[in-house]
Amino acid sequence: MQAIGIDIGGTKIAGGVVDELGAITGFQRVPTDATDSTAIEDAIVAMIRELAGGERVPVGVAAPGFIDAGQSTVYYTPNIPWRNEPLRERLEQRLGLPVVVDNDANAAGWAEFRFGAGRLVSDMVMLTSGTGVGGAVIAGDRLLRGGFGVAGELGHMRVVPDGILCGCGARGCIEQYGSGRALQRMANAVADAGGIGTALAAARTEAGGELTGAVIGALVQQGDPGAVAALAELGSWLGQACASLSVVLDPQLFVIGGGVADAGERLLGPVRRAFADHLPARGFHPEPEFAIAELGNEAGVVGAADLARLHEDPAYAAFAPRG
Amino acid sequence: MQAIGIDIGGTKIAGGVVDELGAITGFQRVPTDATDSTAIEDAIVAMIRELAGGERVPVGVAAPGFIDAGQSTVYYTPNIPWRNEPLRERLEQRLGLPVVVDNDANAAGWAEFRFGAGRLVSDMVMLTSGTGVGGAVIAGDRLLRGGFGVAGELGHMRVVPDGILCGCGARGCIEQYGSGRALQRMANAVADAGGIGTALAAARTEAGGELTGAVIGALVQQGDPGAVAALAELGSWLGQACASLSVVLDPQLFVIGGGVADAGERLLGPVRRAFADHLPARGFHPEPEFAIAELGNEAGVVGAADLARLHEDPAYAAFAPRG
Repeated sequence: MQAIGIDIGGTKIAGGVVDELGAITGFQRVPTDATDSTAIEDAIVAMIRELAGGERVPVGVAAPGFIDAGQSTVYYTPNIPWRNEPLRERLEQRLGLPVVVDNDANAAGWAEFRFGAGRLVSDMVMLTSGTGVGGAVIAGDRLLRGGFGVAGELGHMRVVPDGILCGCGARGCIEQYGSGRALQRMANAVADAGGIGTALAAARTEAGGELTGAVIGALVQQGDPGAVAALAELGSWLGQACASLSVVLDPQLFVIGGGVADAGERLLGPVRRAFADHLPARGFHPEPEFAIAELGNEAGVVGAADLARLHEDPAYAAFAPRG
Repeated sequence: MQAIGIDIGGTKIAGGVVDELGAITGFQRVPTDATDSTAIEDAIVAMIRELAGGERVPVGVAAPGFIDAGQSTVYYTPNIPWRNEPLRERLEQRLGLPVVVDNDANAAGWAEFRFGAGRLVSDMVMLTSGTGVGGAVIAGDRLLRGGFGVAGELGHMRVVPDGILCGCGARGCIEQYGSGRALQRMANAVADAGGIGTALAAARTEAGGELTGAVIGALVQQGDPGAVAALAELGSWLGQACASLSVVLDPQLFVIGGGVADAGERLLGPVRRAFADHLPARGFHPEPEFAIAELGNEAGVVGAADLARLHEDPAYAAFAPRG
């Protein structure tokens, strides 16, 4: 059974038709005005109609923010002005198609579990380090949704009491130590310190005063010691967070995704070392693997479609894991 | 169907026959020598034989430490010298009965979920504050076991980077801030400080120099400001840990058990306040409740028996949640 996946971002909506092996056809992407929720809904409806082509196809919509456990209501999105929005009901009424709504990081994590880095394990944790830090948890072949639907918000696990203030209102969230923005802060600090930061400082001047992720990433790829040190600091924080997540969730695999993960093994090395240094009761039980996400930017579309298919088709759900 | 539950502690083994509503008959308790694993196995076998009375009854054994995901092998126990012990196979061979092995905190948490404080929710986290801090996670009506069977070791979630050294080899585990031992440390510090600690200091002298949990608990019940302050500090740490657990697991309910939980609302008040102060994105989604455990010391026996019944009887598993 084909399914449609829609991934709503802050600046764009992506969508496609996804088959049972996770392959996308008819991929589309349109820019959005995040402040206009009516325009976003209209754009979603138009995209789904075109992708469905009159067929009855289950639709999965991935949105940022908090979605209820019934895969129906958007409690809150950080960018789009949806508050307790009955998105599933509205889309089903306009489209006449079965719709489920899921958190975008959960959808991406589900895609990695089904078709990407996590396809051989039953228990997986995904951390996506982009502008912020997103998360998804697969426990016993199922997407961990939580009692209210908002489980797996791993970016807001606290790693430092009274630490850096986070956009969520709390302090010391891993998002402030393991995100792309955190990497920029760390790289700027290295650049300011001189020494191994000389190349970072020069690149910053050349780039007009800002160390973007792309600039830092290029220096990391060249093996620049300052950029590598900044990345290692970020990796250490992620590894420490994984140690705490391991005692709670005990996954066989941690998957790291997002822009920061483009650094590959240069990131995973420090993550693994910090994990080993901070894992409680090390040596007394098996330990997880670490891998980079495989599916890239389309993971949200693929995962949303697969979750919709699982919800709609009992036959598919019988042989596939339960979302 | 009746089932037998066995709970192996550091100083005793408890067991009983448990019915489908969680009621215990034939409860037994015998002291053990934790250093003699053969004597422990013999005591378990003798107790089960007597409880079974020749009937074919499923048996659940709860043990401290790390148990594999197949409910069979004890990787490690902190007190008993079991290392990669195939306990299930050994007991099944000697008894001729179906046996499963589970972690003791998981068994107790499962009992609270099925028959105690958590019986009306689908997602529950239990923290047991005794000598250490134990944990159990119920996610989507299932016991969270993890990929290797060692999920829910919540006492070793880190709350303070470079914090107090823990027996697990890591630093800053919540066990060092939220256990009965931590309460003793906090109460001693208040006693040493004078002021509101005067009554604690006097009680310590009267008790021969040691502030036991019972002494602190009696002063808490009397409303002594020093003892209440020490308990509030402990409660604050537990509440902070619950805030991080909430973003990961999103339970509808946190259950606090163990000796420290005898303080009831005097403990839950500080826990709830700290939780509210530290919960990320507060106000944007529903929030969990907090409750004291209801089943007491027999929870491990009840939970182990119920997990054995679920494993053995497909008919029971069909209408009851999956462990």
